[in-house]
Amino acid sequence: MNLRSGRLKGKMTSDAASFTSSMEFDKRIFLADIKCNVAHTTMLKEQGIIPSENADKIVEALHDLESEGIDALNLDPSVEDIHMALENYVTARIGERAGFMHTGKSRNDQVATDLRLVLKEELDEIKMDLLDFIGTILDIASENTETIMVGYTHLQHAQPTTFAHHILAYANELRRDYERLVDAYKRVDMCPLGAAAMTTTSFPIDRERTMELLGFSRLMENSIDAVSSRDFMAETIFALSMLASNLSKICEELILWSTYEFGMVEISNEYSSTSSIMPQKKNPDVAEIGRAKTGVLYGELVAVMSILKALPHSYNRDLQEVTPHLWNSVDTARSMLNITHHMLASIEFNAERGRELANSNFAAATELADLMVKEKNMPFRVAHQIVGRTVTEAIEKGIKPAEIDSDFLDEVSMEIHSKPLGIDDELVKRALDPYEIVKTRRAIGGSSPEAVEEVIKRLRNFLKEEGFN
Amino acid sequence: MNLRSGRLKGKMTSDAASFTSSMEFDKRIFLADIKCNVAHTTMLKEQGIIPSENADKIVEALHDLESEGIDALNLDPSVEDIHMALENYVTARIGERAGFMHTGKSRNDQVATDLRLVLKEELDEIKMDLLDFIGTILDIASENTETIMVGYTHLQHAQPTTFAHHILAYANELRRDYERLVDAYKRVDMCPLGAAAMTTTSFPIDRERTMELLGFSRLMENSIDAVSSRDFMAETIFALSMLASNLSKICEELILWSTYEFGMVEISNEYSSTSSIMPQKKNPDVAEIGRAKTGVLYGELVAVMSILKALPHSYNRDLQEVTPHLWNSVDTARSMLNITHHMLASIEFNAERGRELANSNFAAATELADLMVKEKNMPFRVAHQIVGRTVTEAIEKGIKPAEIDSDFLDEVSMEIHSKPLGIDDELVKRALDPYEIVKTRRAIGGSSPEAVEEVIKRLRNFLKEEGFN
Amino acid sequence: MNLRSGRLKGKMTSDAASFTSSMEFDKRIFLADIKCNVAHTTMLKEQGIIPSENADKIVEALHDLESEGIDALNLDPSVEDIHMALENYVTARIGERAGFMHTGKSRNDQVATDLRLVLKEELDEIKMDLLDFIGTILDIASENTETIMVGYTHLQHAQPTTFAHHILAYANELRRDYERLVDAYKRVDMCPLGAAAMTTTSFPIDRERTMELLGFSRLMENSIDAVSSRDFMAETIFALSMLASNLSKICEELILWSTYEFGMVEISNEYSSTSSIMPQKKNPDVAEIGRAKTGVLYGELVAVMSILKALPHSYNRDLQEVTPHLWNSVDTARSMLNITHHMLASIEFNAERGRELANSNFAAATELADLMVKEKNMPFRVAHQIVGRTVTEAIEKGIKPAEIDSDFLDEVSMEIHSKPLGIDDELVKRALDPYEIVKTRRAIGGSSPEAVEEVIKRLRNFLKEEGFN
Amino acid sequence: MNLRSGRLKGKMTSDAASFTSSMEFDKRIFLADIKCNVAHTTMLKEQGIIPSENADKIVEALHDLESEGIDALNLDPSVEDIHMALENYVTARIGERAGFMHTGKSRNDQVATDLRLVLKEELDEIKMDLLDFIGTILDIASENTETIMVGYTHLQHAQPTTFAHHILAYANELRRDYERLVDAYKRVDMCPLGAAAMTTTSFPIDRERTMELLGFSRLMENSIDAVSSRDFMAETIFALSMLASNLSKICEELILWSTYEFGMVEISNEYSSTSSIMPQKKNPDVAEIGRAKTGVLYGELVAVMSILKALPHSYNRDLQEVTPHLWNSVDTARSMLNITHHMLASIEFNAERGRELANSNFAAATELADLMVKEKNMPFRVAHQIVGRTVTEAIEKGIKPAEIDSDFLDEVSMEIHSKPLGIDDELVKRALDPYEIVKTRRAIGGSSPEAVEEVIKRLRNFLKEEGFN
Repeated sequence: MNLRSGRLKGKMTSDAASFTSSMEFDKRIFLADIKCNVAHTTMLKEQGIIPSENADKIVEALHDLESEGIDALNLDPSVEDIHMALENYVTARIGERAGFMHTGKSRNDQVATDLRLVLKEELDEIKMDLLDFIGTILDIASENTETIMVGYTHLQHAQPTTFAHHILAYANELRRDYERLVDAYKRVDMCPLGAAAMTTTSFPIDRERTMELLGFSRLMENSIDAVSSRDFMAETIFALSMLASNLSKICEELILWSTYEFGMVEISNEYSSTSSIMPQKKNPDVAEIGRAKTGVLYGELVAVMSILKALPHSYNRDLQEVTPHLWNSVDTARSMLNITHHMLASIEFNAERGRELANSNFAAATELADLMVKEKNMPFRVAHQIVGRTVTEAIEKGIKPAEIDSDFLDEVSMEIHSKPLGIDDELVKRALDPYEIVKTRRAIGGSSPEAVEEVIKRLRNFLKEEGFN
Repeated sequence: MNLRSGRLKGKMTSDAASFTSSMEFDKRIFLADIKCNVAHTTMLKEQGIIPSENADKIVEALHDLESEGIDALNLDPSVEDIHMALENYVTARIGERAGFMHTGKSRNDQVATDLRLVLKEELDEIKMDLLDFIGTILDIASENTETIMVGYTHLQHAQPTTFAHHILAYANELRRDYERLVDAYKRVDMCPLGAAAMTTTSFPIDRERTMELLGFSRLMENSIDAVSSRDFMAETIFALSMLASNLSKICEELILWSTYEFGMVEISNEYSSTSSIMPQKKNPDVAEIGRAKTGVLYGELVAVMSILKALPHSYNRDLQEVTPHLWNSVDTARSMLNITHHMLASIEFNAERGRELANSNFAAATELADLMVKEKNMPFRVAHQIVGRTVTEAIEKGIKPAEIDSDFLDEVSMEIHSKPLGIDDELVKRALDPYEIVKTRRAIGGSSPEAVEEVIKRLRNFLKEEGFN
Repeated sequence: MNLRSGRLKGKMTSDAASFTSSMEFDKRIFLADIKCNVAHTTMLKEQGIIPSENADKIVEALHDLESEGIDALNLDPSVEDIHMALENYVTARIGERAGFMHTGKSRNDQVATDLRLVLKEELDEIKMDLLDFIGTILDIASENTETIMVGYTHLQHAQPTTFAHHILAYANELRRDYERLVDAYKRVDMCPLGAAAMTTTSFPIDRERTMELLGFSRLMENSIDAVSSRDFMAETIFALSMLASNLSKICEELILWSTYEFGMVEISNEYSSTSSIMPQKKNPDVAEIGRAKTGVLYGELVAVMSILKALPHSYNRDLQEVTPHLWNSVDTARSMLNITHHMLASIEFNAERGRELANSNFAAATELADLMVKEKNMPFRVAHQIVGRTVTEAIEKGIKPAEIDSDFLDEVSMEIHSKPLGIDDELVKRALDPYEIVKTRRAIGGSSPEAVEEVIKRLRNFLKEEGFN
Repeated sequence: MNLRSGRLKGKMTSDAASFTSSMEFDKRIFLADIKCNVAHTTMLKEQGIIPSENADKIVEALHDLESEGIDALNLDPSVEDIHMALENYVTARIGERAGFMHTGKSRNDQVATDLRLVLKEELDEIKMDLLDFIGTILDIASENTETIMVGYTHLQHAQPTTFAHHILAYANELRRDYERLVDAYKRVDMCPLGAAAMTTTSFPIDRERTMELLGFSRLMENSIDAVSSRDFMAETIFALSMLASNLSKICEELILWSTYEFGMVEISNEYSSTSSIMPQKKNPDVAEIGRAKTGVLYGELVAVMSILKALPHSYNRDLQEVTPHLWNSVDTARSMLNITHHMLASIEFNAERGRELANSNFAAATELADLMVKEKNMPFRVAHQIVGRTVTEAIEKGIKPAEIDSDFLDEVSMEIHSKPLGIDDELVKRALDPYEIVKTRRAIGGSSPEAVEEVIKRLRNFLKEEGFN
């Protein structure tokens, strides 16, 4: 049946039809649309709104369609959308009676319901993928609590740490991404069905019953809001964009660390490629594409926010244009998540290079200053100044970090402070050993093996609580 | 004291100093920075890390500073930032001993802590403002449950509704904005203090104690994550952008509805302006600026997301550049929220025009089709087709909605369906009366006065539960 | 041939291969890639770099491929990209000799060249479409130089104008969009070929010869820049986004003007749809989708700018991810352009309603104030004040614009100015007649029929100069 | 004088007044507004529209104001904007006659004119700054045509090049940024004055005369377009965003190259800072802030594009909100440009490290493959495969690039190709020497000293043509 026949003479131009068609993206809601129609028809029957027999026929036809699959539908663009295609199918099966299934609902509430049903499933899967990735990070961390590396601020050597400690930052970041998806989910999990076009209906429908049949936790109460709001999509896309942003940090580090200069990790061949002209190359293409996909997510977020700006209520066709950006965001973020997960799992960390870098460039300086504070009860700022001068002079004189000793410190201290420090050489040596330093960071969240183990334990508990084993 | 003196000879150029200075925005964290230093110093004392007497002196100086206010600081850009300015103040008061307050912390963890402290307060205020606005909407709705207007889809007349029903959409949208801020707050309310530069410290600090002293609910555990993550800012800005997007719909409707053509509302003079050349004008400038501010929020979101993309761990100076966008977002969203609130409270709704529009353009058509379904047990799609044709013919023949009667319907039905409808004239009249239609929308969230009252009641309960009276 | 075989053992995982594959979008550069290879091979032969006979065989095979079409290629994702697929084809035809075609070039310079070749063609087409649209606007304007309507500022009635005058704003805006594409084209039209991987090659290639063979106007000189810059894409996407922004204003006005309330235009059925539940609806769906597509363009712009941010030189795989956003922008903007063009051409402007609105709400007020200035040599500000008060009192007393006369003006003038105005009633009447007002706007770009005709003439000249008839 | 007094009773609330005030940003157009008023008044006098004497008095008062400076104005927010403040000043000086200066214009056309006047000046300055930066790059390049470094693709060693060659990429990128500003300027340089509120005026003004007096090249012809279009701002902001994007690549490379790992450049102390806790640190803070500012520009672009989307004609107050984003973009881009310029000029390139890296990781591999093609007339793909395998085996066996000789190549060739290569050892040695390789890249834009000199010459010519010495 062609909806237009009653009101509008003539057809859309084919350009206009294809410009406004949602068919390409409607396929994704095929099963949800069946589910939604079954629930609505069931409620109509229970409420005595439509004849029982008709309701049963409709539900039967819908189940048949589910078995046959989407190929049983005529998805020609002239059909407008999947709701009409589905109705046409049921009509072909049971005749004009099919029209009853549309009693007391509209495409406006129906499409909003379908989209939420599908998105709930997608979010559940992404959430599981996230927990899975966190699990992998914890496994890697467990094996690397003593794998020394240098930590960076401003991409300059800052302080010694361990590979385990470093990647627990990833785990904690992803945990918040998980929390954000859980929170976004609460606002996806609201049922608009029964809002009909925008004011509900004069039929005595039971909105809480369809909500329950479809497994939603809350109603989108106000019916105008129910058909016009897509904040649940925007929020989801933001949460995925933030996730992408966090993943892009991992990709960036893999790109950096696998340079010849850093040489800290080797990405497996499975996630690398070579060059058509430079035969020696091994390129981190997967990590680069991952980094770039972050921009794709940002773009989707802007597209959706721009579309939603200043739209009057209630339903406007602009809202249809939001949907493809939702699905593209979901698919892009998910593939980015899983490929980053597997790529990280594939790398080899070069422990020797890690230790070498940690030893090479005065990353121990903070500890040296702290030592002066502790041993000499010196204010931190004074210690800071002495160590700063020590490093500058060492660089100028070509003295390596490991060669700094008590005498050298005394000399510098004399210059600045007019008195020697007099710190035992043994203590100085220990203060300059990366592993010794790491071991002292015992506060919660610190880099010492014990502190790292504690955080791993807490994160494993979190995984368990979220139902992940 | 100049930090540079130890390590770097020479000063930054003044251009570079001003390019990298955060001083302008640091003022906002003045009190938080004192609070943070007091808590940290207190913990250092309790843990026996610094001499008790020194700790007391430091805390005393900090309290003095709090009393004196920010003007007591030297905020010259050469001082780098407020943390140094504050330390300089304490040093001027108690001498070199001031240096102890910096034991076991860094500007990296401190600034992250300060920003979170301030943002928590700001969010609490915006949340209250939001509840306040919802309260106002409920008050307006209570007085307008029978104020008829036409509801729109695609900006075309769709179905009759009431002003109360319409603005409850605003209330439900704002409620989700409130929820989003509550959820974002959970990730703001995490304490990074003690992460120090990035690996915690070798001093035996107690991070849970400072967390408690500062009133945070959770720790940012991993210390690298603690100093490098600004997702709490991005998430807040997103939640505010979504709020702005929802507010922009209200602004857009006030602009539209106060046109000569719609004529549905009059914005009070207090929120209008005139023209320098067209003396007859009364312009909705406040609503227009409100609409435009949405774009400002979107811009801030993009700025922040762009900055965060692909930054390696841990702290990079780029993060400093995020902060002004946070504060601008907070201020812009809050002023937009409150001005939209007061502007909406100031409008007069033209009830007569509302009813006139609801009667003028076949908004009752859905009800007419539903009537056929109910009375004649006709499938909805057939009824839809008959009513569609009826409207087209009425427009062509210049027949007004109120003039449609049983005979006219029979005629159209004969054409399409080859049989008359035979619906009682009385029923047709009732189906065409906007108020009668509205009364039938009794499902939850519908437009009938009872349904509207029910939603108002639920929202009042929500306000009460959130501590708003 | 598999590039990896030399350097990297093992294959990419299928997930990684599909994550990094550009094959889907490479199809668009199929013909350009042949053209590029033919030009490069020709130059290699001319320079004596490769054997003449081999060059001829390669070119012959490439021409065969052109005839056979893209289906002759094996586009399996494992082939990496279209360049390899094409090389595989040639190798299958002429054996190992095919390898000569890759002498002195790389995929890095080749893909950049191909993309520019295709984009030049696309831009030429969009430019023609733009001129075509401007032509249509001029045709409509020519027929409507006396079609009165009210002009708006702040969406409030401002001054009387004509439909022709109004839509010439569209024409001037689109002309600048055209100029921007012409300017962007200059930076697309630069040849990167010969840059090879990033430093050109030791073979004595002639870059100016391939530039000439491919029809480029300039070289991308520096070879590092040549392979790493995608500003030509970003600039194009911006120009298209700006075009979309301008088109969105047209869409917005068609949506507004076709509301029941404005009633100024009727969009043809071909660009409208109805509702599945509200049989009376005629919805401007095409204009709404057009409006929403603006957001899609904005999203693409942000995606691309985000990807490009802070990438080090030279080629990074991130750049591949820019391309699909370019094509999507091109396709979206072009379909939006053409559909807006045809939709606008299809509308009926309701001249009666136009005149009615122009008469109804004091749009003549500016003219009335100007009259006082002219007749009474009164400063504009005083006149402004008198007219402002006149309008307010007329509204309060229910006096219609057409009923304002000399006496009424004198009364208001006495109140404010303490003296009567004494303007002739005839002049007042004329000052209040929209058509009379319009006729007085004779300055260039004004609303009078002559001024409008002049601008039409200038724009027709512009079209002619750009080669459009 | 208060504009509102005629039409609107009561004042705006102070919140609303401050929400809608543009005063803060109006200061920037103070001088332009005087200039605009002088030109307009002069034309009014020349056309005999206002009394000559009055015109002279107005111009005199305006000149006085120019001498006195902006402090002579009352800029209280209640005054609405700078146009009113300026008019108030003139009124205070010469009484009611001041009102004549507003004859035949409106704030709508005036503010658009002022903004364009100021922006033209700003663009001229940025353009000069850009040329200046290019000049500096050419100076650095001239001194470094033989400074060997390794070139990167995918951040992996690709081919040997020189520092001069590398930074000429910067110069070429900035040249296109310059071109974009020149092109944007053409659309800034259009005069809207005389459009008045939106339809021009009935006074016989001469728009071409004011255009000429103000130094504009073209008219914004259609008067509706003249007051409603801000594409000139959006385009400028885009051009600046693209510039920022190109600058961010420079910042990124300075950050990377000044890491301990890369060690290729030392940023001067003037553009670096240290750490409050890690005394050894020397951080590239200026480059990091520069990188972050790119995001700020992107945000401004999105803000402006979002504001402009789907606004109906003609002037809407939303447009006011665009202006601060323009100025912030201009200021941010300019400071970013100049500071990047000076920072780049301050660095020391470590030539020894450059050469070391170029020798260390098989960057010569392409040349080796090319050698086989040339010497043995072997297809490039076969050569590629042999070299790929050679590198892999060398890495596995710990053989350094410099140790690869004819025998080793023969061995690998036998494995793959079943025959030895038989290339002279001398040729192999030369093919592996970075400097020898660089010298062979003689094609235009290549890395050889001659090719680099040629590009420098061309760019110096470009600078000269643009009037920069």
